[in-house]
Amino acid sequence: MPSDALIRAESLIRTIPDYPEPGVLFRDITPLLADATALRAVIHAMIAPFEGDFDVVAGIEARGFLLAGAVAMEAGVGLVPIRKAGKLPRPAASVSYALEYGTATIEAHDDIVDGTRVLLVDDVLATGGTLVAGHELVAALGGDVVGTAVLMELPALGGRAIVGDVHSVFLG
Amino acid sequence: MPSDALIRAESLIRTIPDYPEPGVLFRDITPLLADATALRAVIHAMIAPFEGDFDVVAGIEARGFLLAGAVAMEAGVGLVPIRKAGKLPRPAASVSYALEYGTATIEAHDDIVDGTRVLLVDDVLATGGTLVAGHELVAALGGDVVGTAVLMELPALGGRAIVGDVHSVFLG
Repeated sequence: MPSDALIRAESLIRTIPDYPEPGVLFRDITPLLADATALRAVIHAMIAPFEGDFDVVAGIEARGFLLAGAVAMEAGVGLVPIRKAGKLPRPAASVSYALEYGTATIEAHDDIVDGTRVLLVDDVLATGGTLVAGHELVAALGGDVVGTAVLMELPALGGRAIVGDVHSVFLG
Repeated sequence: MPSDALIRAESLIRTIPDYPEPGVLFRDITPLLADATALRAVIHAMIAPFEGDFDVVAGIEARGFLLAGAVAMEAGVGLVPIRKAGKLPRPAASVSYALEYGTATIEAHDDIVDGTRVLLVDDVLATGGTLVAGHELVAALGGDVVGTAVLMELPALGGRAIVGDVHSVFLG
């Protein structure tokens, strides 16, 4: 059962109809992030199942960076940014994945030793393509993904079927 | 005088010659971020002069998000993402600024009340254009910028002259 703090945090997620396109309900987490108490509650909830089980947190650009920075400090671990293609000077690994139209590519530097235990985080689990690519990318760096945590899962989009076990704080 | 932890953290910043163009020395902070001890040392150093003086941290996309997320948790404050144009559904304010070629625009939602005390953070102070625009953006939201903190300042590029008082952990 969610705590009062999490119920309040969820109430701060703003729903914006018809964005980015007609018929889509966009979940805007910025009011939640701006509230110190709500932010702490969701970061604690994201970490809770994995406490002590990971050495670094990997966050996916761009909103995943906000959460990964917070998770890193709260859990006392290192932070690995997973970036969109073309942003890193020395990418050690690169994974492409399909979007609705076309493809996207994510990259990372290899700043971890083999066998490092990695928690992968992002803001939203939608179709799951980005998170699956994130798993492949961490594996290509020699890391061991011990868990995946998102602030919000959109179950109607079916991402869990391809990502596998994901810890989601909220269902949208 | 910097602590041993900060000296070690600085040694983890990787210098990459001729990136993104010939003659430029790129400072890559990803090895520092990946090291839990170094990350804590620099986040503490970024916050130290402003402890207790700010209610939210505003971070500039994208590397600034990594640091702002960490600062928010460590300082116990809220987090406001300052995004590149076109990423937010309901931008309340928007500021354009000159780049070497062309212009860039940053935007934010208005998730703060007027008079909120804001610490503005980014990874690098170079020419200062982005941080000046960040100040204007926070002011447009009704926030009060109480300080600006960066991980690294590149004094040769002269940004301090236009941004004003900036707290930099390292000089590059």
